[in-house]
Amino acid sequence: MAVEREKIYSEGIITRLSQYLKYIVHLRDTGKRTVTSLEISGHTKINSAEVRRDLIYFGLKGKRGVGFNIDELISAFNKILGYNDKVNIALIGAGNLGKAILNYKMLDRFGFKIENVFDNNPEVIGKVISSRKIKAISELGKIIKEKGINIAILAVPEDSAQNVTDLLVDSGIRVIINYTSIPIKVPGTVDVETNDPIEKLLHTLYYLSNTVYAGYN
Amino acid sequence: MAVEREKIYSEGIITRLSQYLKYIVHLRDTGKRTVTSLEISGHTKINSAEVRRDLIYFGLKGKRGVGFNIDELISAFNKILGYNDKVNIALIGAGNLGKAILNYKMLDRFGFKIENVFDNNPEVIGKVISSRKIKAISELGKIIKEKGINIAILAVPEDSAQNVTDLLVDSGIRVIINYTSIPIKVPGTVDVETNDPIEKLLHTLYYLSNTVYAGYN
Repeated sequence: MAVEREKIYSEGIITRLSQYLKYIVHLRDTGKRTVTSLEISGHTKINSAEVRRDLIYFGLKGKRGVGFNIDELISAFNKILGYNDKVNIALIGAGNLGKAILNYKMLDRFGFKIENVFDNNPEVIGKVISSRKIKAISELGKIIKEKGINIAILAVPEDSAQNVTDLLVDSGIRVIINYTSIPIKVPGTVDVETNDPIEKLLHTLYYLSNTVYAGYN
Repeated sequence: MAVEREKIYSEGIITRLSQYLKYIVHLRDTGKRTVTSLEISGHTKINSAEVRRDLIYFGLKGKRGVGFNIDELISAFNKILGYNDKVNIALIGAGNLGKAILNYKMLDRFGFKIENVFDNNPEVIGKVISSRKIKAISELGKIIKEKGINIAILAVPEDSAQNVTDLLVDSGIRVIINYTSIPIKVPGTVDVETNDPIEKLLHTLYYLSNTVYAGYN
């Protein structure tokens, strides 16, 4: 299958592709070999015409009545995303949230490896949690540079979120997954993805009070 | 300000509105009184023309050189979302993730109240965590119906995710915020919002390997 790696894709299509990929990796793990655009649509809630358009845009072809080969889709999607083998992630914060993130089996299944965990609590530093020895925040800059880590997950208390963010930016981190519920400030060169429940909950309220869905915009 | 509550808004606009609201509530909490569409754009990464178009669409008007009154925006947005005063949420799972969710101060600030927490671990049931007494999963159906709870946060281990989901659906829950990293199956009448880091991480890979951003699709 011809996948044009050089194409520049839009924000929207990459977001959808990430949803497709997550779902089909799950299907593969449950033993499935093929998937239809209708199944992808049913699960991701992205309408099936859009799913088909996206797959065609990526140069992917399914077989009528059978659908798409899951392994081929996964390998094509990984190529588009620029994924190769293993992605090294730093986790900042080894509290309840940090521990929960370390327990996410899915991260590992997708090749996301959290090998470096940092905290500033002297009672936690040096302890081993889910087979990782917790390191001091003071070592963060040095280790991130040495290992060439690009992505950090921020799971610290609200009141230290911005300080730790500044440290991460200074260390050369390019993507921060913000698990705190406050907005953080970063330079334009750093990407922040927010992963807290507030927006989803707010979003949900509208649908609770409106029975009619209006489709996608 | 005239806000047409009866309008049916699209998925896209409600998602953006949730992002605007989250940001401006944060601004209000830091003492700000006004906000410009450019500031909202800078923070949410939604382009400023779209922000302006959305606000106009909602019938909101700013003052040239000053921007929008934050209290008026918040009250208008709440009205659009159908929010009134307090939203009662059930939390399923009192492990590391559940504890972290109970600690999110932001939930409270937005009026989301988690008063009922359930777990199936006998060692946890009856214990008090963040001032909530943990209840047994076996009581879930009864309590959710009695209290008329519509929203549940799912923070259980992967292997019980679907079973607990089925229980929630049977109890009449209409929205599930899925914090587990596996997809759950629900009838078409129930809305599932996923809140795990995988999609964000996958999404992010593309931008790490492509320096040019392509704008929104």
